[in-house]
Amino acid sequence: MSESQMAGSAAWIRIRNAAGHVGETVEIRGWVTHRRSSGKVQFLVVRDGSGNMQCVAGVKDLSPEQWEATAQLTTESAVVVRGVLKADPRQVGGVEMGLQSVEVVSVAHEYPITPKEHGVDFLMDHRHLWLRSSRQQSVLRIRAEIISAFRDFMNREDFLLVDAPVFTPSACEGTSNLFETQYFDDKAYLTQSGQLYMEAAAMAFGRVYCFGPAFRAEKSKTRRHLIEFWMMEPEWAFGTLPDVIALEERLLTYTVGRVLEARSEDLKVCERDTSKLERVVGPFPRIHYDDAVKMLHDAGLPFEYGNDFGAPDETELSNRFETPIFVTNYPAAVKAFYMEPDPANPLLSLSCDCLAPEGYGEIIGGGQRMSSLDLLTARIDEHGLPQSAFEWYKDLRRYGSVPHAGFGIGVERTLAWIAGLDHVRESIAFPRMLTRLAP
Amino acid sequence: MSESQMAGSAAWIRIRNAAGHVGETVEIRGWVTHRRSSGKVQFLVVRDGSGNMQCVAGVKDLSPEQWEATAQLTTESAVVVRGVLKADPRQVGGVEMGLQSVEVVSVAHEYPITPKEHGVDFLMDHRHLWLRSSRQQSVLRIRAEIISAFRDFMNREDFLLVDAPVFTPSACEGTSNLFETQYFDDKAYLTQSGQLYMEAAAMAFGRVYCFGPAFRAEKSKTRRHLIEFWMMEPEWAFGTLPDVIALEERLLTYTVGRVLEARSEDLKVCERDTSKLERVVGPFPRIHYDDAVKMLHDAGLPFEYGNDFGAPDETELSNRFETPIFVTNYPAAVKAFYMEPDPANPLLSLSCDCLAPEGYGEIIGGGQRMSSLDLLTARIDEHGLPQSAFEWYKDLRRYGSVPHAGFGIGVERTLAWIAGLDHVRESIAFPRMLTRLAP
Repeated sequence: MSESQMAGSAAWIRIRNAAGHVGETVEIRGWVTHRRSSGKVQFLVVRDGSGNMQCVAGVKDLSPEQWEATAQLTTESAVVVRGVLKADPRQVGGVEMGLQSVEVVSVAHEYPITPKEHGVDFLMDHRHLWLRSSRQQSVLRIRAEIISAFRDFMNREDFLLVDAPVFTPSACEGTSNLFETQYFDDKAYLTQSGQLYMEAAAMAFGRVYCFGPAFRAEKSKTRRHLIEFWMMEPEWAFGTLPDVIALEERLLTYTVGRVLEARSEDLKVCERDTSKLERVVGPFPRIHYDDAVKMLHDAGLPFEYGNDFGAPDETELSNRFETPIFVTNYPAAVKAFYMEPDPANPLLSLSCDCLAPEGYGEIIGGGQRMSSLDLLTARIDEHGLPQSAFEWYKDLRRYGSVPHAGFGIGVERTLAWIAGLDHVRESIAFPRMLTRLAP
Repeated sequence: MSESQMAGSAAWIRIRNAAGHVGETVEIRGWVTHRRSSGKVQFLVVRDGSGNMQCVAGVKDLSPEQWEATAQLTTESAVVVRGVLKADPRQVGGVEMGLQSVEVVSVAHEYPITPKEHGVDFLMDHRHLWLRSSRQQSVLRIRAEIISAFRDFMNREDFLLVDAPVFTPSACEGTSNLFETQYFDDKAYLTQSGQLYMEAAAMAFGRVYCFGPAFRAEKSKTRRHLIEFWMMEPEWAFGTLPDVIALEERLLTYTVGRVLEARSEDLKVCERDTSKLERVVGPFPRIHYDDAVKMLHDAGLPFEYGNDFGAPDETELSNRFETPIFVTNYPAAVKAFYMEPDPANPLLSLSCDCLAPEGYGEIIGGGQRMSSLDLLTARIDEHGLPQSAFEWYKDLRRYGSVPHAGFGIGVERTLAWIAGLDHVRESIAFPRMLTRLAP
């Protein structure tokens, strides 16, 4: 239907489908990105959000009024163009339109974004317009493909989507970095993770995932931090640490493969070295925390055993490999209170982070959750958390406790890696950062 | 892989796939929902989140220790059972397991949810456990199917997913009913709608949609209100009011058809009269606001022309039809400031609500957006809104303004209608209501 709506005698098509309509008279509705004229011939490049197309008119192809109006079109003016599609291998998409009519929908004011270099602040202030640039379009198309791949993969693996709440009465991992709001007569906090809720859902449905926005009020101003970001969190009843690591491996292999296949043009626009992505096929290395620490010491880094890795440590580790790596068995002290202790060494935990290669660092955090009610109760005390807030969570250990494991994967960091972005701010349409809440 | 993991010699399968493994020795991991014994035969019903299965053991099938342990199993105890699958048409799913071993993972404390009637407050306080009940499971499976259908449909119609931000610096539709939070040195508000952002994205990509949680701090305590709900919002550049009404019609026809096909068992558990859903095939009636008012007056309702419809009015209108209906051309005064005026009567607007049948009322709101910069500027003034907050939004009319339209469809209300729920509180795993923020 969307392709077949008639306006006059020509079907309205999307530019991405133009190759299938060569020889036909069609209509395209979009915006002018470039215009030039050689006196008797006018060239328009029109974008419609699905692609760009060169449209050509000789002076006799258009009425004198249309010829004149076309000559006045400014950048980002809106038009409905009709004409015959011709194959032309020199053009992007391989198709050109021989114009028969140009209907001007609106003439744009002088467009603020020009081919000259703009500062990042200027572009971010104009994010609502910057989205029209071809690089930003490609990045966000890859984003949509990654999200679609995540969901398709989880559905295929028989995990059920269960949405976790955004408003929570208490904190999942401590009370710092939380956004607070008045919730009628109560205080509510914005979720940092849906995991605890997914544990409850996993005991109901066996295999579940949530996928939504999460919020961290961190005063970090790095190229890897967003205040508001999207995360997918699968949770697997009867799943163990090795089970979820294997699941993550299949997820990443599938996702990267699908982006390579479906978004190759967009990766080209991002100037991504796709040979590096083609190597992202499991199995990926599993590296025990102890071995990772040795690698850092061998590299001469002043890392203290027992700590969590910082960005330079992650960069050092991930630069040693051409694929994502799994670092496992982190010290219990640097992980959340609900991590299952490592039976081989109770100071460590059955946890795993996945670090993306090329210095991109952590994109997944996960592990096996504590299944013992007594141990969980003790840990809640040790962390100074109120037992009452976690009674419902402890119920999951009272009524049918099972080994279970899960992880959280961040959309923006995964996209930054796959698209090869310098900064995570381009990985979402309207980024929210320490100093940016608009537009 | 998830189906083929080996534990001992038997493959771990999911109950929903059991019919494909008849005659095989398999393993199921789950929870005991019922147990009974006739002395020499024990019967267990095990649920694994994908379905329920009856498992049967004669006294010689299990070791004495396992026989004894099985006899002690309480409701919701966790087990790993192994045995041979046999076709048995009397059983749910048509398959029964002849037990060869029962491994007890954990014995549950006395389970608080029993077959007796519980009050809604009790069940909601135990929502993390109530999710395990078969009716709640069916409702949430239908939810997941609806969400999947929405996304698949939009992707197929060539709309691109573009996530809208949750944190916004200003209100979309007035400042009342907004949740506020401290955003570092600023105030931020939680989104009520991603629409304005989708308009910007539509000018970049042509056809877009967002899909995420939205928040309304309404002190409403009705069976149709949630504080936190999920909404999908497509926006279509060059799309008009009739275009989006037709799109909604295709979306609803597709979604209901898919639920009927993929979730028939779950609809049965919900005791849904599916003959009513089978009639949900477009075209659906389009009813002009003026005609809707006449219908209300004919029915003797004291409705005043010019007002928005209340719940009793919507019920009266939607009860007259067996399919969803579209009510169009509402008075501009009861719609948001950005609605395009009706060229036939500027006191009306190019708007449309979709009302679900059987008294379920509004599930979609949408319309054509204002494309004139001058008119939009005037309307912002008339509504007492600050121009400065909308400069970026007005840019969409400065640079390539085009006719465009879109809508928002609520997941929970759509689910309540399709599953035939009495109250929207069962339509989401962890509902947030006026007096409910936990668990």
